[in-house]
Amino acid sequence: MHNLKEQVLEANLELVRRGLVIYTWGNVSAIDRAKGLVVIKPSGVKYECLTADDIVVLDLEGKVVEGRLKPSSDTPTHLEIYKAFPYAGAVVHTHSTYATAWAQAGLDLPCLGTTHADCFHGPIPCTDSLDFNALAVGYEKETGLAIIRRFEGLDPAETPAALVRNHGPFVWGKDAPGAIYNAVVLEEVARMAAITLGINPAAGCPSELQEIHYMRKHGPKATYGQ
Amino acid sequence: MHNLKEQVLEANLELVRRGLVIYTWGNVSAIDRAKGLVVIKPSGVKYECLTADDIVVLDLEGKVVEGRLKPSSDTPTHLEIYKAFPYAGAVVHTHSTYATAWAQAGLDLPCLGTTHADCFHGPIPCTDSLDFNALAVGYEKETGLAIIRRFEGLDPAETPAALVRNHGPFVWGKDAPGAIYNAVVLEEVARMAAITLGINPAAGCPSELQEIHYMRKHGPKATYGQ
Amino acid sequence: MHNLKEQVLEANLELVRRGLVIYTWGNVSAIDRAKGLVVIKPSGVKYECLTADDIVVLDLEGKVVEGRLKPSSDTPTHLEIYKAFPYAGAVVHTHSTYATAWAQAGLDLPCLGTTHADCFHGPIPCTDSLDFNALAVGYEKETGLAIIRRFEGLDPAETPAALVRNHGPFVWGKDAPGAIYNAVVLEEVARMAAITLGINPAAGCPSELQEIHYMRKHGPKATYGQ
Amino acid sequence: MHNLKEQVLEANLELVRRGLVIYTWGNVSAIDRAKGLVVIKPSGVKYECLTADDIVVLDLEGKVVEGRLKPSSDTPTHLEIYKAFPYAGAVVHTHSTYATAWAQAGLDLPCLGTTHADCFHGPIPCTDSLDFNALAVGYEKETGLAIIRRFEGLDPAETPAALVRNHGPFVWGKDAPGAIYNAVVLEEVARMAAITLGINPAAGCPSELQEIHYMRKHGPKATYGQ
Repeated sequence: MHNLKEQVLEANLELVRRGLVIYTWGNVSAIDRAKGLVVIKPSGVKYECLTADDIVVLDLEGKVVEGRLKPSSDTPTHLEIYKAFPYAGAVVHTHSTYATAWAQAGLDLPCLGTTHADCFHGPIPCTDSLDFNALAVGYEKETGLAIIRRFEGLDPAETPAALVRNHGPFVWGKDAPGAIYNAVVLEEVARMAAITLGINPAAGCPSELQEIHYMRKHGPKATYGQ
Repeated sequence: MHNLKEQVLEANLELVRRGLVIYTWGNVSAIDRAKGLVVIKPSGVKYECLTADDIVVLDLEGKVVEGRLKPSSDTPTHLEIYKAFPYAGAVVHTHSTYATAWAQAGLDLPCLGTTHADCFHGPIPCTDSLDFNALAVGYEKETGLAIIRRFEGLDPAETPAALVRNHGPFVWGKDAPGAIYNAVVLEEVARMAAITLGINPAAGCPSELQEIHYMRKHGPKATYGQ
Repeated sequence: MHNLKEQVLEANLELVRRGLVIYTWGNVSAIDRAKGLVVIKPSGVKYECLTADDIVVLDLEGKVVEGRLKPSSDTPTHLEIYKAFPYAGAVVHTHSTYATAWAQAGLDLPCLGTTHADCFHGPIPCTDSLDFNALAVGYEKETGLAIIRRFEGLDPAETPAALVRNHGPFVWGKDAPGAIYNAVVLEEVARMAAITLGINPAAGCPSELQEIHYMRKHGPKATYGQ
Repeated sequence: MHNLKEQVLEANLELVRRGLVIYTWGNVSAIDRAKGLVVIKPSGVKYECLTADDIVVLDLEGKVVEGRLKPSSDTPTHLEIYKAFPYAGAVVHTHSTYATAWAQAGLDLPCLGTTHADCFHGPIPCTDSLDFNALAVGYEKETGLAIIRRFEGLDPAETPAALVRNHGPFVWGKDAPGAIYNAVVLEEVARMAAITLGINPAAGCPSELQEIHYMRKHGPKATYGQ
């Protein structure tokens, strides 16, 4: 698991460098599907002090199998995502400014152009309000279930991000660098969309253009890159 | 008092590093409750030149007991906060951009999501306009009294910040690092709220969610951190 | 071609330094008009790894004549611009935030002041939506043709930039540093215009002032500089 | 004049460090009132290459008395300000983003709080549109005259800045560091005002509060600083 711990450590630090996280407001995890083990940042530890040894290893039921520290308080949300979305190899949670503003606005982030379509297939869904009578399972687990309910009929591999209403983004990818990339793109397109609608509240994007761009970079006919 | 002076010096410099202060537009103080002494930044001294020896020590009546320099012109506001709010171990004043914009807008900063609720219990109150016929006590002291009047019925330990109308934020905490943290969070949630309401003017946040998040990080049942 | 490759490499790196590009989201090309050869960034290569040897050389029909790597996926758009606009010595494509927001808004960027008029003669045109039934020529080539159609009656030397609807800016100049300069100015005036219209939706700029400023820096009577 | 040249060089570089200027988009001058001589940045020279020897010295009629290079193209505007406002010891012109946006909006920048009132006494006036039939005196000189016309009844020492409509800010001070300070504050309060009015379009500031804050830092009863 040492390699995955190093990846998760590096991904957490990258969140700070990319300006998506201040203080301890974010967490990254990754999964070893063969072993069924998840590695995740410990709760509330300063990034400047974090070492690979601090990263916690747990199974999909949340039982810690390695590490001296308590895992991130958002761990149950990560675990639900891994259990429901086989595509997810890593999960990132941040309070990045613009993605969080959309989550607070309680609106799906619309696809308004190719910057969005290059990375995400369609709008980024915003979850419904939690059922506060159903928190017996635990708030963080219920948050994960709210994401999964919202993804009924959607492909989590094509839209690897959710806006948790009044909270912030949860983003995933096939590995930690991929999930970080998706989180950075989400923040940038959330910012562009807020500015765009400030200029023209009626802005939209033809679905044909969205398809072309998504397919240039994804799927069997992708032409982008080397 | 040397240790507290070093803390206050460091906190003033941290305000600059965090982008909350340019030039000399901010001040931090801290109190030694046992001795009844407050240490505070001197007025109008450049941060690059500031040393622990420049920090001024005064009693709660404002009498300087140590230091060659004049204390911050906002000192009487700090003193009123210490006298009225026993919780406050340190006070921070800035003109950080978004918190100041809310103060200029003359509106309470609403809680629109968990980023806010993780740190503050409920909206950040904006003071009423000063009574300009009642400035005989001194403008800066009257500013402190306006904060205190606005906190009737509120717990300053749960909402450790006020927006002084048409002026800017005064923020407190149990010590200097805590007050700085609250000031940084306030600026970030003020920014998020302005962007959120630009996207959806009807945005709001269920009170249940606010409670869950505030209680995750505060009070006897807090689960966050190590 | 080595010199031109170095220029194109340097221009790509400058886009990152100026904050117009994150990851691999931009590309710069330049043309040697005497030889009829275009040099362009390879597709999807990280900027930190890019060397002059990675830069691809191709003719105006898109045939690679030098280089081991695949050229930028936007190459056919660049080629159409070179073929239609003899003025263009270099072409820059970015997804810079504010210029992209205007492209997503589907609006021409209006000239609201002298910052714009110092660099561009009149509004920056936004292309019409692509005809998605006419993509047999290839999407990227059709993007170039959409720019050219929109420039009927306009002088590409005086307005060296286009906003491709729902996509982002394509900018040109007489050489690579000139095209970069135009891309930086475009982003800044796109930002200023969004803020200006937020303050006053009825803002506009007298055409006489636009003429004076454009002519101070361009044409036979230019007086700016040494 | 060497000392004043060094000051003007340093002030030009400070504009870049403070983020008010990109490329060559700004200029600072200062005056030696005893000698009647103005020192100013040369036109269109890159800041990275600028030395004190490049700074141009001219008299109030614009005749160059020292220096190999052409002075800033905005020189006639600077000269009119020096001739009309004896208070001005230095003049700064920038295209800083938010101050320029207000100039493009064609509106006086209102005083919405103490950040503004600490530095400026009342709103920052926006000039009227130039009379384009009256440009025989030269566009840059006419720009200076438009500023002076707008200041009828105002004290340039108390409001040391003007927004030139559709252009950008001209700011002055008793010396170069003072003028730079005023330009930095202007940009910050222009930004705060745009954000404030986005939150609450009806925002305003009691005149009593403006008076108290302006007088804390200015005039015979100033109490701020050491």
